[in-house]
Amino acid sequence: MSQEGIALVMLEDCEARRDLNIRWLTGHPGDALLFLSTVEPRAILIAWDVNLAKLYAAQSPALVTSYNDFDRKPRKAINAIAKKLGIPAGSRIEIPCATPYPVFLDYVGELTDFDVLCRENGAESELRKLRAVKDEEEIAITRKAAAITNELIDTLEKNVVSGKIKTEADAALLIQAETRKAGCEGTSFETLAAGPDRSFAIHAFPAWTYAPFGTKGLSILDFGVKLGGYCTDVTLTFTRDLDAKQEKLVNLVEKAAKLAISMAHNGTRARDIASAVDELFAKSKKKMPHGLGHGIGVQEHEYPVIRNSSDNEWVLESGMIFTIEPGLYDPLLGGCRLENDILITGSDSQPGYEILTTARIIKLG
Amino acid sequence: MSQEGIALVMLEDCEARRDLNIRWLTGHPGDALLFLSTVEPRAILIAWDVNLAKLYAAQSPALVTSYNDFDRKPRKAINAIAKKLGIPAGSRIEIPCATPYPVFLDYVGELTDFDVLCRENGAESELRKLRAVKDEEEIAITRKAAAITNELIDTLEKNVVSGKIKTEADAALLIQAETRKAGCEGTSFETLAAGPDRSFAIHAFPAWTYAPFGTKGLSILDFGVKLGGYCTDVTLTFTRDLDAKQEKLVNLVEKAAKLAISMAHNGTRARDIASAVDELFAKSKKKMPHGLGHGIGVQEHEYPVIRNSSDNEWVLESGMIFTIEPGLYDPLLGGCRLENDILITGSDSQPGYEILTTARIIKLG
Repeated sequence: MSQEGIALVMLEDCEARRDLNIRWLTGHPGDALLFLSTVEPRAILIAWDVNLAKLYAAQSPALVTSYNDFDRKPRKAINAIAKKLGIPAGSRIEIPCATPYPVFLDYVGELTDFDVLCRENGAESELRKLRAVKDEEEIAITRKAAAITNELIDTLEKNVVSGKIKTEADAALLIQAETRKAGCEGTSFETLAAGPDRSFAIHAFPAWTYAPFGTKGLSILDFGVKLGGYCTDVTLTFTRDLDAKQEKLVNLVEKAAKLAISMAHNGTRARDIASAVDELFAKSKKKMPHGLGHGIGVQEHEYPVIRNSSDNEWVLESGMIFTIEPGLYDPLLGGCRLENDILITGSDSQPGYEILTTARIIKLG
Repeated sequence: MSQEGIALVMLEDCEARRDLNIRWLTGHPGDALLFLSTVEPRAILIAWDVNLAKLYAAQSPALVTSYNDFDRKPRKAINAIAKKLGIPAGSRIEIPCATPYPVFLDYVGELTDFDVLCRENGAESELRKLRAVKDEEEIAITRKAAAITNELIDTLEKNVVSGKIKTEADAALLIQAETRKAGCEGTSFETLAAGPDRSFAIHAFPAWTYAPFGTKGLSILDFGVKLGGYCTDVTLTFTRDLDAKQEKLVNLVEKAAKLAISMAHNGTRARDIASAVDELFAKSKKKMPHGLGHGIGVQEHEYPVIRNSSDNEWVLESGMIFTIEPGLYDPLLGGCRLENDILITGSDSQPGYEILTTARIIKLG
């Protein structure tokens, strides 16, 4: 901040624009504004729910005050904080890069004494980039989350095989219950359970119903757990009595997953992996309608981007944790996706990776 | 659009910026861009999942194409659509008002032939305002959603009283299962179930755990169902063996709910209702840390705004459906919230309302 002459940075986590940086920095998991400044106190947390903030941000050095003191209006808060901290007129103040254009104009109109910055590669984005590489503590907690995920995968397989899980709802409710029993704060997103009639969709809608699951054809189960703020994200496909075309689809997806993971090394460009998978599918005249993967962490989708697009400059490095999730979908055949979470462990001289999760294609017959 | 000389409007529903207008207009429930223009075809839906769009937007007159044809880049899509439709150079093109400032600059840089509009009171916001007043079909489906909600409330009460529901998880999982059994697409948001140790938070975090529920003190249960795209949103408080201070809290919240609902008439300013509740609480030196209510519809939070703020100009009118949800929270006593869904039914000459849901304070002992 000093280098760029920025006196005050505001981050905003609200219903319309989630910014998990605030939780990552302070521990507070709810709606809030976080002000970072070059003068004391360096961090001020303005929380909607002060009681919750005092509980969860207790370890962080931020001063906690109530959003209601500012009529829950960020512009009012930023003005008051700038005044309180004695930010000199003419200083640069940075607001979130997600600020809508009309709201940006309001800030500029209100903060006439300051130079308002709102930019793509500012504080919010730098923090998100920092989050892409996990430290030891983050890796440790993700390993624990992965262990819970893997135990759940085994339980799910056992229960589908035994017939205890007969519907999408049986699978989704089991995941809901078991994640909390295992000490997780919840699932990392709404479980997507799609039996053969609904697996053609990338993300089934509704997310799960009482439709049959694990019956003849392709059934997809996409879920994750969130432990101490850190997410996993896996997808299993259950198959039964496939025809030749469905077999081919499944084999292609398995092949793509293997190919992608074998390339997931320190120093590899993420888009090269995604491009290799696209090429593999193209050879069989198939096209994947979504990206190959994404980072996971305090958010279920974060950096790095694992996608075949010309502007994707992400290069894999040690400490990154991301999904590899090739999938193919067909209105008649159904869909197949195989998603696991990968940790890059190596160095430039000794590349390496670790597959944290054990999602698989489960062949029921 | 013609009146304002706008040739093309783009709406965007994506992970970072949800816009339920697209579902409302076309039926498609997933990530998409919707282009509205003054020339044929008047609506073009660019969906991430084309298979899903063809299923859900089948009734709508929109032309459906794939987001992947444009590398999933809105700017590329808008340029291609403008060209396809033959929008003349110099025309006004409106992009979503939620577009972040840095992204807005990118649009302007890309759409050099056009006059790019991005404004607070544009198409997106006008559609959201239209949604605030429900038509007969919308009221009918909300009534059905309310009936399912009310049956669930009775089941929940019965099961807490009988001891079948002992934990927050028992309540949350029952809601999850029963909503789908009743034909709902899901809950309208993640159920918040907070036993006496956790009810002090406005929105409990985590949303629900295996902690005791319905034991001595105050337990809050906030949930809703979504049927055919339409939400309900209710909050029950369960009480047991309260001390005098807790009794006072509960009585105040009940009194506030009655007062607010009695004022919920056609022609009333929403902020006057919220202000009356704030005054009632202030007399007992209490302060509610959140707004009094909000519209419900295809989104769990929509217009009208039922909040005591000087810039809230919403006036209640026939066909509006919204929550009234006074609540008080204390780190030591716990929290109490009572939330019901109200439909304005009257006219200016004959004001009237209907309480669609039957949420209540449930006294266990």
